[in-house]
Amino acid sequence: MNYRMITYILGWILIFEAIFMVLPAVTALCFGESAVLWFAATAIICLVPGILLTQIKKPVNKKLYSREGFVIVSLSWIVLSVFGALPFFLSGEIPSFIDALFETVSGFTTTGASILNDVEKLSKSMLIWRSFTHWVGGMGVLVFIMAFVHLSGAQNMHIMKAESPGPSVSKLVPRIKTTALLLYSIYFVLTLVEFVLLLVGGMTPFEALNTAFATAGTGGFGIYNSSLGGFSAYIQIVVVVFMLLFSVNFNSYFFLLKGKPKEALTSEVLVFFAIVAASIVTIALDISNSAGSMGKAFLDSSFAVSSIISTTGFSTADFNLWPELSRTILVLLMFIGACAGSTGGGIKVSRIIIMFKNLWKELLVMIHPNLAKKVKLDGRSVDHETVRSVSVYLVAYVLLFTASLVLISIDNHDLITNFTAVAATVNNIGPGLEAVGPTANFAFFSAFSKIVLIFDMLAGRLELFPMLLLFNPATWRK
Amino acid sequence: MNYRMITYILGWILIFEAIFMVLPAVTALCFGESAVLWFAATAIICLVPGILLTQIKKPVNKKLYSREGFVIVSLSWIVLSVFGALPFFLSGEIPSFIDALFETVSGFTTTGASILNDVEKLSKSMLIWRSFTHWVGGMGVLVFIMAFVHLSGAQNMHIMKAESPGPSVSKLVPRIKTTALLLYSIYFVLTLVEFVLLLVGGMTPFEALNTAFATAGTGGFGIYNSSLGGFSAYIQIVVVVFMLLFSVNFNSYFFLLKGKPKEALTSEVLVFFAIVAASIVTIALDISNSAGSMGKAFLDSSFAVSSIISTTGFSTADFNLWPELSRTILVLLMFIGACAGSTGGGIKVSRIIIMFKNLWKELLVMIHPNLAKKVKLDGRSVDHETVRSVSVYLVAYVLLFTASLVLISIDNHDLITNFTAVAATVNNIGPGLEAVGPTANFAFFSAFSKIVLIFDMLAGRLELFPMLLLFNPATWRK
Repeated sequence: MNYRMITYILGWILIFEAIFMVLPAVTALCFGESAVLWFAATAIICLVPGILLTQIKKPVNKKLYSREGFVIVSLSWIVLSVFGALPFFLSGEIPSFIDALFETVSGFTTTGASILNDVEKLSKSMLIWRSFTHWVGGMGVLVFIMAFVHLSGAQNMHIMKAESPGPSVSKLVPRIKTTALLLYSIYFVLTLVEFVLLLVGGMTPFEALNTAFATAGTGGFGIYNSSLGGFSAYIQIVVVVFMLLFSVNFNSYFFLLKGKPKEALTSEVLVFFAIVAASIVTIALDISNSAGSMGKAFLDSSFAVSSIISTTGFSTADFNLWPELSRTILVLLMFIGACAGSTGGGIKVSRIIIMFKNLWKELLVMIHPNLAKKVKLDGRSVDHETVRSVSVYLVAYVLLFTASLVLISIDNHDLITNFTAVAATVNNIGPGLEAVGPTANFAFFSAFSKIVLIFDMLAGRLELFPMLLLFNPATWRK
Repeated sequence: MNYRMITYILGWILIFEAIFMVLPAVTALCFGESAVLWFAATAIICLVPGILLTQIKKPVNKKLYSREGFVIVSLSWIVLSVFGALPFFLSGEIPSFIDALFETVSGFTTTGASILNDVEKLSKSMLIWRSFTHWVGGMGVLVFIMAFVHLSGAQNMHIMKAESPGPSVSKLVPRIKTTALLLYSIYFVLTLVEFVLLLVGGMTPFEALNTAFATAGTGGFGIYNSSLGGFSAYIQIVVVVFMLLFSVNFNSYFFLLKGKPKEALTSEVLVFFAIVAASIVTIALDISNSAGSMGKAFLDSSFAVSSIISTTGFSTADFNLWPELSRTILVLLMFIGACAGSTGGGIKVSRIIIMFKNLWKELLVMIHPNLAKKVKLDGRSVDHETVRSVSVYLVAYVLLFTASLVLISIDNHDLITNFTAVAATVNNIGPGLEAVGPTANFAFFSAFSKIVLIFDMLAGRLELFPMLLLFNPATWRK
């Protein structure tokens, strides 16, 4: 294990975290908030070890293997979250450290589950820091660093693989640094366009920036207790469109830019939009009685479906009160999640497609045992490795899910609350049903349950394996 | 597709179904019930096509391939259930045919979920027929037929594979007919011992026979509305022991008989009993306050745990009212289920072990990509085929589960009811939580939902693939 290299990269994480503090600090200055002190303090706390680890103990051997890749990614996210929680905790705006950590992990992992009973009591600079964590976590903090710092050459792929969502990662261009820069440019432009469109709809710059950050990362932190319920239909529609746009594999945008629309429209994108459309129509019909008008039913249904499948977690209507068919469909969408290579969470549409295609293939092989058949996706055959890793992913997912469910059931809340709390955290969504429904929050869980859910959010964001491997002794053995 | 051979075996199913009618008919005569007529009528309705198909249209080509194996098994169980429902329906004791079919499928698949609001209103002969379906379905009706009729030589393995529970079937002795006879002998003797022990405990022969049948098949139909709640602690303990005994792979008994205790104690058996013990202790501690005494807590916990993990579904206490930790553990046990090669349902302990070991192996391979490692079980390496089929099984399971959940949610019952109703049927358990809890039943579901659940019971009993393959056009293509 190349420990020098691991601490070197963790050092960079801390330096970048210090840089991230500039935005909330400036916000604090603009609004004349005293919180500026705490952001400055956090920046210094990050900078000291950051500079020490990157400048003084520079690694000679920059080689990284896949196990270092996993360890770096999981430790980076843990370090990022622990230090990111400091402004909330030091300022006393979130008095419990576990709560501050929960909120920060929920931010970086783009979950959007909150422990705040009254989010409107938070200062404006804390609100922008909270939303900004979504934006940083959405595309990946290591990908961000790799766009600017030359870390370790070709082996960066191991880091990118471990941090990026989806069963397989493809480099868009030969150089990883350029790929990372490209991804972040698309991300930045899309965020900017949403920001402008929200301003046009009458949001204040502060509201628009928060909302754009939270949509872009598919995070879902709102700055009002009613989430986006109080905004106009125009604003809601803009957010729906961008929640869906940020759920699409960013490779598709790259291909669109290169003028290859055929390559952009992958089966994953098509299946994703087919699921969205079918769910919107079914739920709209199911809630048409209570919604008042068909138009309102379609707006509420579109918002809820896009919010859940993109794993954003914004809310306008209280879908916890909807009929059981709608609730059940929303719970399923929680698990499906967005496309691979997007900022969204969940199992990912491409994994679901591979699972189905593989099941279909195996059903054929059962009938014709001598048949040699491969799973194909977009005309190319999916390699055996990927199919296997998808199967193993499902097992790891079920294991993590059930273990978490049992552990938090000790708190003795009802089964739907527990089930959807785990689903909402491991899939990085935010709200669940019943006591964690869209009008509620996670404050009432015990500290122990919060730690379990913190782990679930990190594991979900990093696609399980990096977090699970931390507990495998073989990872640490020579 | 060898259609002649398929109808030939379906003919034998009908002949055996006619023979099965002897037991309830005799019961009806003993208790002077008029229902004897309906059992006689059903026997004749079965015999006519049965004799026609087996004696007149004898197949020349007796060859069976794996797809015929799957089709024969799924069609056999459908035919068995449809004709088995006739006594209930013709006699008018269950006036709706869908309900009669639900009850019969629930019987043969050893689920034990009932649509009867008042089971005590049923005549004694109908009760014994209901319990007897458990006994027949437990070890498998085709296995039963193969013990007595020479069907098609070496290819019988395809049928046995498709009907027997678990990821892999091993012939105990070279000849399938002898294997089948051996399994049924062990099954018969164990049932007899339980019957005698129940008589000793003060049950009437009628009660003891019903209870022994329902335990042996891990079915769970009770003959009283309070299930086994009204019986003594001795009776409850006898049932606990036998529920667990019938959850063990029958191969273990074979090895015990041959004086090879080491081969009998497989990892599956050890893990099974470890799960049972851990669950009993945790739940007993969790319910100790409400149970009154620690002894009562352990008795109730042992009963519930054994009843659920064995997928029997008898009840003594109303575990729906227990704290959430206990309820959550019971829900998990529903999914784990019994050992492969037993009469129990669920995913099966051996599949869970293989999933875990494979996950562990893949986690190692992620760290050391060049490692060549195989999954091992009981010192032997599990072949690649089995690991793959276990993975595919999990995908098929999740697919069936979610599709069923959405379909029955149209009835608009609560999510826990729906979730545990699907869990209780697809795992062949019987009771779930809330509206399908141990003191409740499945009567209130719509006919459509009942059909979905009937499919789930059959799919669960036959380990998914035979029922799913019925819908694969490739199965029927030349």
